[in-house]
Amino acid sequence: MLIVMQAQASSEQIDRVLETVRRMGLTPHPLPGPTRTAIGVTGNTAAVDRRPLEMLPGVEELIRVTKPFKLASREMKPHDTAFRVGPNQGARIGPGSFTLIAGPCSVESRDLILGVAEAMTQRGVKLMRAGAFKPRTSPYAFQGMGEEGLRILEEARAATGIGIVTELMDTQDAQAVAQVADMIQIGARNMQNFALLKCVARLNKPVLLKRGLAATLEEWLMAAEYILSGPNYNVALCERGVRTFSDHSRNTLDLSVIPPLKAVSHLPVLVDPSHGTGKRAFVPAMARAALAAGADGLLIEVHPHPEKALSDGPQSIDYQEFDALLESLRKLAPHLGVELT
Amino acid sequence: MLIVMQAQASSEQIDRVLETVRRMGLTPHPLPGPTRTAIGVTGNTAAVDRRPLEMLPGVEELIRVTKPFKLASREMKPHDTAFRVGPNQGARIGPGSFTLIAGPCSVESRDLILGVAEAMTQRGVKLMRAGAFKPRTSPYAFQGMGEEGLRILEEARAATGIGIVTELMDTQDAQAVAQVADMIQIGARNMQNFALLKCVARLNKPVLLKRGLAATLEEWLMAAEYILSGPNYNVALCERGVRTFSDHSRNTLDLSVIPPLKAVSHLPVLVDPSHGTGKRAFVPAMARAALAAGADGLLIEVHPHPEKALSDGPQSIDYQEFDALLESLRKLAPHLGVELT
Amino acid sequence: MLIVMQAQASSEQIDRVLETVRRMGLTPHPLPGPTRTAIGVTGNTAAVDRRPLEMLPGVEELIRVTKPFKLASREMKPHDTAFRVGPNQGARIGPGSFTLIAGPCSVESRDLILGVAEAMTQRGVKLMRAGAFKPRTSPYAFQGMGEEGLRILEEARAATGIGIVTELMDTQDAQAVAQVADMIQIGARNMQNFALLKCVARLNKPVLLKRGLAATLEEWLMAAEYILSGPNYNVALCERGVRTFSDHSRNTLDLSVIPPLKAVSHLPVLVDPSHGTGKRAFVPAMARAALAAGADGLLIEVHPHPEKALSDGPQSIDYQEFDALLESLRKLAPHLGVELT
Amino acid sequence: MLIVMQAQASSEQIDRVLETVRRMGLTPHPLPGPTRTAIGVTGNTAAVDRRPLEMLPGVEELIRVTKPFKLASREMKPHDTAFRVGPNQGARIGPGSFTLIAGPCSVESRDLILGVAEAMTQRGVKLMRAGAFKPRTSPYAFQGMGEEGLRILEEARAATGIGIVTELMDTQDAQAVAQVADMIQIGARNMQNFALLKCVARLNKPVLLKRGLAATLEEWLMAAEYILSGPNYNVALCERGVRTFSDHSRNTLDLSVIPPLKAVSHLPVLVDPSHGTGKRAFVPAMARAALAAGADGLLIEVHPHPEKALSDGPQSIDYQEFDALLESLRKLAPHLGVELT
Repeated sequence: MLIVMQAQASSEQIDRVLETVRRMGLTPHPLPGPTRTAIGVTGNTAAVDRRPLEMLPGVEELIRVTKPFKLASREMKPHDTAFRVGPNQGARIGPGSFTLIAGPCSVESRDLILGVAEAMTQRGVKLMRAGAFKPRTSPYAFQGMGEEGLRILEEARAATGIGIVTELMDTQDAQAVAQVADMIQIGARNMQNFALLKCVARLNKPVLLKRGLAATLEEWLMAAEYILSGPNYNVALCERGVRTFSDHSRNTLDLSVIPPLKAVSHLPVLVDPSHGTGKRAFVPAMARAALAAGADGLLIEVHPHPEKALSDGPQSIDYQEFDALLESLRKLAPHLGVELT
Repeated sequence: MLIVMQAQASSEQIDRVLETVRRMGLTPHPLPGPTRTAIGVTGNTAAVDRRPLEMLPGVEELIRVTKPFKLASREMKPHDTAFRVGPNQGARIGPGSFTLIAGPCSVESRDLILGVAEAMTQRGVKLMRAGAFKPRTSPYAFQGMGEEGLRILEEARAATGIGIVTELMDTQDAQAVAQVADMIQIGARNMQNFALLKCVARLNKPVLLKRGLAATLEEWLMAAEYILSGPNYNVALCERGVRTFSDHSRNTLDLSVIPPLKAVSHLPVLVDPSHGTGKRAFVPAMARAALAAGADGLLIEVHPHPEKALSDGPQSIDYQEFDALLESLRKLAPHLGVELT
Repeated sequence: MLIVMQAQASSEQIDRVLETVRRMGLTPHPLPGPTRTAIGVTGNTAAVDRRPLEMLPGVEELIRVTKPFKLASREMKPHDTAFRVGPNQGARIGPGSFTLIAGPCSVESRDLILGVAEAMTQRGVKLMRAGAFKPRTSPYAFQGMGEEGLRILEEARAATGIGIVTELMDTQDAQAVAQVADMIQIGARNMQNFALLKCVARLNKPVLLKRGLAATLEEWLMAAEYILSGPNYNVALCERGVRTFSDHSRNTLDLSVIPPLKAVSHLPVLVDPSHGTGKRAFVPAMARAALAAGADGLLIEVHPHPEKALSDGPQSIDYQEFDALLESLRKLAPHLGVELT
Repeated sequence: MLIVMQAQASSEQIDRVLETVRRMGLTPHPLPGPTRTAIGVTGNTAAVDRRPLEMLPGVEELIRVTKPFKLASREMKPHDTAFRVGPNQGARIGPGSFTLIAGPCSVESRDLILGVAEAMTQRGVKLMRAGAFKPRTSPYAFQGMGEEGLRILEEARAATGIGIVTELMDTQDAQAVAQVADMIQIGARNMQNFALLKCVARLNKPVLLKRGLAATLEEWLMAAEYILSGPNYNVALCERGVRTFSDHSRNTLDLSVIPPLKAVSHLPVLVDPSHGTGKRAFVPAMARAALAAGADGLLIEVHPHPEKALSDGPQSIDYQEFDALLESLRKLAPHLGVELT
């Protein structure tokens, strides 16, 4: 339910509504708007009793939210979400920006990470991706450097000021990852790991939520709702390809989900053309298509020597390819009303 | 198999190779190139006997084509295919051009078609789509105007000079459709209607071959191979969305198929964002994404009054939306190295 | 719409209703039941005007059919459809029977077909499958023996009395195929070849309609509706695997479609475990599972020497495997309330 | 790699091999067979150095395992896995048995669970399913009774002697769940929650690993490999429906995966017809089909009052339906060479 306050409602009136909602065993989410404040209400398993609320002073209107996702919906929050990420809040994610999160698949060594952090910073990229904990199909494959990898990321951040986006896979590692990450990534295979979602919902860090391999738009937004209702309002979605019969690429990158997502939700949407295609040669075209389709940025694998990468080499582009991509994105961005960052 | 001729091979030598191939019970396809001629050989069910060919004068080299599709592959023909379509060959389909084929889903009335033909021509669109024969899921739905619809298309063509792209559904209608159409469309549901493919392979008309709802890249190119081997070399492919678990749109528009298609085949690829999304509001973004992804054009449903359309109204854009789309495509096209036509 | 007649309605009253329906431009389908006659009405594109019908003598009730498929639905015909097929109507397809249609993928030679017809007849199998016209992914693969194949099937039928089930791919071959076939097969790739469906709807032959590779239950029944509305009421459906992400078999055999199909439709459902799995070793288990799931029979590829088959060898079982399968089906059938035929 | 020992190899020789493997930084898995012992070796990321091993006394042969899954493959362990579960090892899971794990979706109340435990025990069912921790799409839906639910399961176990199968969702709950569960369930959404897999790999409890919604056969076995390599050898797989375009049921129950699974792996396979269909009316037919397809048992939702269930009511069968199903399974089982337990 959405409680719309009168334009001239006082902060005391707002507080009283918040308190009343809490006394009903529900969770209030203040949503300040340009002309008035609204208060989202979540936590109910059945219809909310309207009477104690509609008679409170300052309340203009109670609106039932029809979607199963509430805080993620435009019904509750019509305006696009945008937030800042990274050291000194240097990066912005949200409409109007086309934000690049670039870097290697995994933290492979100190040299690699410091080198990439430097190279990305030089190119104006403000956020670096790299996994210390890696979800691998095989138990016998490289599983990431773990804690040691986190230390390396920390060092790269300190050295260059680049923001760190890295994956959390286990609730037991939450504190360790949150200390280093500027944005916590939840991987596709964990999109419905509800214990993990509840855990990041309680952390005070932006979250990048990748779409599950077979997730519908609604399931994806419901997963986001787990985080938003924490509350943790700084969530960005990331399309990374879904599982279909198609065998021409590693996954089927579903750019067509962007317009419908934007229609029902205010959350930013990034695209990962690296996992989406699984093949280096196809990444630049799909990156450009993501921009044209209305995405708010890219999560993209860049590696100085893709042929030597410990994971995801075949889908990583090198610096030269990245530079060429940047140049073409820079030409297109103004004609699509966004700024490349 | 591909027979590469020496650069200085005479036309008599080429003719002798062609004749030898024919005497072996196979089909030769002369493929003139910038510096030399190559001759594709098809029709063999097992490996071709190389000896009678490699000793002929003027033959440089015999190359085995490894893909199951032969004439559609870049192995046999490295250079992009481009061809001209329509009255006075007014339209061009192929790399370098971004070609629009626009119009209503079906021929609903003389007024509609003459009006759209006029409106499209004014906007510089050289090819109009509209179905006289309509594939409909239900036997009780409007099945198209049939022969009468063809007459209307003919009239619109005569009145405005616009080229006609229209669907053929039954081999028995082939002559009637071929007399009117400048380009014959094979629908998604008929992509593996092999009798129909063999039929258009023998017609002297360009063909627009839509991707089947569950067709892999290879199956799609094999369907094209049926037409190419006719021979009918003027084939363009059209991605129109595939069937997946996703329920946010009518089909899942698979733009990610474009780079892999371009990598293995020289055929032009168009995109149908109307069927791909099934929803008017999502068409413009996906049309722009198609351009950015490397498509060679669009097949797009435009209707003066989508809400009154007899079929596909929900996915048709109106003139105003089409104009806005044209404007944005015109801005982007130069930065992607193509000309909007 | 369904017109339910009074139990004591006279045949004159029924005729008058039929005539009235026809005068309204619609098609009446008399559906005699155990206690009363009902008359299905199809052909309307909008709601039928009830007034001219509900006042006719003998009419008990008018019932709106809510499903998009009408004649295929249990709303219009609650009782299971069963019909007889083959020379002397020797085979029965429908609930209570578990009917085997067995034989090679294609008519490869006179010897093969006469041999298989003999072998199947000896085992009590009353219907043989074998394609004279073959839908092949590649234009360069064996395309079937065509007319000559039909002559061979005719001869096998005459020699053994076995019924012939064979595929029609092109409307232009309809008469030739109908003269030989006891049941006409429409292949998966032609499930929405609407010209072909309309064609078999006008033939007086039972039809076996295979499910398309990406067809929903509703689309499949709508395809059946094209045939039923011909009218041609003798339609059996055949599940043969659908296209999914799964790569452990050629297709994903969807046995789970059987209970929902039976819930909404009265049509018999067969299963093709050969195409469904694509692998000989997996055929017997899935054939037994089809029986247990409630299917009304099997379309199954049997070949005396699968390793020499011109098509579909890897998924054909040999006589010994077929005998073992028959034995296990015979043990299970009585416990599932059906008779193996 | 698989080290096959000579038939007469002494236990000292075997120990020396085990020790050598460990010294190489790898993990040995003794696999006693009817005539000789074999030792699986895992943990290598590249090819194992054969020399230190092949010269050890008692070693017959070193065999390279070609599948990416090692301990799960028949290459390493040709014979079917079977193990016992529950209080006093009362239940058996593995070929020859068709084992039922029945009960409500979730622990809703003490009364419900004690009642179901009693009702199932009376019917000879030895394992009960019921979730204390529930993975729910919505954060606002009933999330399970948690620790309190575990206490209730413990009580039901003590009162009736029924074995408990219950889900673990978070590594932090592992000890609590393992104390109560006789078999730990890993849900479909957590099939690639690798932290969770590594966690149950270290617990001394049988694991029921459900297939992910979009998991290929290989990915599923790789997830099992995470557990087996713990080592925890008592793993059973459970097919529960995959995500496809089909909309006639909640998921597409993929019974066709059973024969290919059995061909490459020795692990038992159960089927969950409740989640597989999502609809009570379709459960019994698919349960029978699972038996006929070669499954080793069922995970099935039974509830005394499905219409009142807090979760999954629409797909739960009641006692009467369960009794009818049991009766039909009892008739079929002997003809399929298995015993119903």
